[in-house]
Amino acid sequence: MITLSLIGIGAGNPGHLTLQAIDAMRAADVILIPRKGPEKDDLAGLRRAICEAHLGMEARLVEFDLPQRDAANPDYRAGVDDWHDAVARCWEAALRAALPKGGHAGFLVWGDPALYDSTMRIAERLETRMEIRREVIAGVSAISALTAGHGVPLNTIGGPVTITTGRNLRAHGWPEGAETLVVMLDGNCAFQEIDPKGIYIWWSAYAGMAQEIRLAGPLDEIGAQIARTRQAARARHGWIMDIYLMRRVCS
Amino acid sequence: MITLSLIGIGAGNPGHLTLQAIDAMRAADVILIPRKGPEKDDLAGLRRAICEAHLGMEARLVEFDLPQRDAANPDYRAGVDDWHDAVARCWEAALRAALPKGGHAGFLVWGDPALYDSTMRIAERLETRMEIRREVIAGVSAISALTAGHGVPLNTIGGPVTITTGRNLRAHGWPEGAETLVVMLDGNCAFQEIDPKGIYIWWSAYAGMAQEIRLAGPLDEIGAQIARTRQAARARHGWIMDIYLMRRVCS
Ligand SMILES: C[S@@+](CC[C@H](N)C(=O)[O-])C[C@H]1O[C@@H](n2cnc3c(N)ncnc32)[C@H](O)[C@@H]1O
Ligand SMILES: C[S@@+](CC[C@H](N)C(=O)[O-])C[C@H]1O[C@@H](n2cnc3c(N)ncnc32)[C@H](O)[C@@H]1O
Repeated sequence: MITLSLIGIGAGNPGHLTLQAIDAMRAADVILIPRKGPEKDDLAGLRRAICEAHLGMEARLVEFDLPQRDAANPDYRAGVDDWHDAVARCWEAALRAALPKGGHAGFLVWGDPALYDSTMRIAERLETRMEIRREVIAGVSAISALTAGHGVPLNTIGGPVTITTGRNLRAHGWPEGAETLVVMLDGNCAFQEIDPKGIYIWWSAYAGMAQEIRLAGPLDEIGAQIARTRQAARARHGWIMDIYLMRRVCS
Repeated sequence: MITLSLIGIGAGNPGHLTLQAIDAMRAADVILIPRKGPEKDDLAGLRRAICEAHLGMEARLVEFDLPQRDAANPDYRAGVDDWHDAVARCWEAALRAALPKGGHAGFLVWGDPALYDSTMRIAERLETRMEIRREVIAGVSAISALTAGHGVPLNTIGGPVTITTGRNLRAHGWPEGAETLVVMLDGNCAFQEIDPKGIYIWWSAYAGMAQEIRLAGPLDEIGAQIARTRQAARARHGWIMDIYLMRRVCS
């Protein structure tokens, strides 16, 4: 029997780590660290640094490579589905190798594990392949890192908030009736595709991290500057993670 | 000159506290603890316990009472507006009394400071009344506590999420086009006002806390049970905080 702790570690600032996350890491016999994508060195590096700071030298860290998602698959959800299966098989192999007699494994998950992350879904898939008990440790999300950095409330007073992806914004435009919109997973500056009139944007790259860059202003005035800044930062660091909040303001 | 740290402390579990929050608390000369509402003893108690655990005895804690919001004002936003002014005056008095020569004050904010909380707005108002520097420390929100407890992802794969209030759900129904809906600040089980067909609900009261209660299932099957459970829990504890996630599932 294997216990799996899916541990939210926050959005890149080592100070985002919660006491609960540290306890869960310490309770684990082994910490599994998946590596993926172009940002893999910086991000796996953060995970390693967190483990070193809080677990000491005796910690058993197991790093393993994840398959890349087939971005060419025109059916987005089916592509994701196949990829989750492949990832679950990697996890299974890593877990059986690391804990042949069972035990407690921790997975460090970026931000909050519930938000635009496949780890919970993969763990669910894993349950059909091996006997596991799951627990999830909540984390500070990139949304909170964005709003804290700018010192801006997420919602207007009593107002709703919509969280979406760059893909959705590009495909469907500004959601009907939305007043505040948070956009994540946007590789292509989808904010440039909407009518900027009356919209204010708060944009952060590497929110909460040492490299943090913040820009905020009326979208029609600073949209192009954000796109340029993003491109330059991405070239400089080799990877980028960015997120933004847009709000319709009275005009 | 006064520095104000608005410190997210998580949604009720002392383990939600981040390392960054602890550092900010320790850097503060004084911690201001506002008291409000019927839950004031349990919640002020949690804040005091957090301070005792991480600051030791020498900590300067200043508790002060907040005015109650005039819920009778028919214009919700105007009522909130007046109330924020009154609260800002209380803060100003507390700050001037606690730090007559300036210094660093910490405010402990429930959950994440950006989410349905007035603290950031009040601090902004305060800036017009005295010279302050603000910083915001991100926290684990009740949304993350809800999803972690249930082990449920917030979003479907690549899907959007809408966060709203009980008041909005009651007034406007299920938002056009929403697939996943998080409802907070709902004193009246607004989920009972919508057509439950094809909707799954994950409900938590006191999420992340010792008293946590969780219920999940098809809304048409468990809606009434949630309402009963909520009423009983509220009577038992004298206060309640609850939150829920609803999702349209394929039928
Ligand atoms: C796969 S999702 C993971 C989100 C994560 N679970 C969370 O709670 O923040 C990755 C997306 O989150 C956002 N993101 C995560 N960390 C970020 C950071 N430090 N700065 C800016 N955006 C970030 C970006 O939009 C990125 O495309
Ligand atoms: C004034 S808002 C504050 C939200 C907080 N800033 C956050 O990030 O979670 C209070 C609402 O948050 C939700 N809430 C906060 N803590 C909760 C908890 N531990 N369990 C359930 N709901 C909670 C409830 O919907 C409650 O009405």
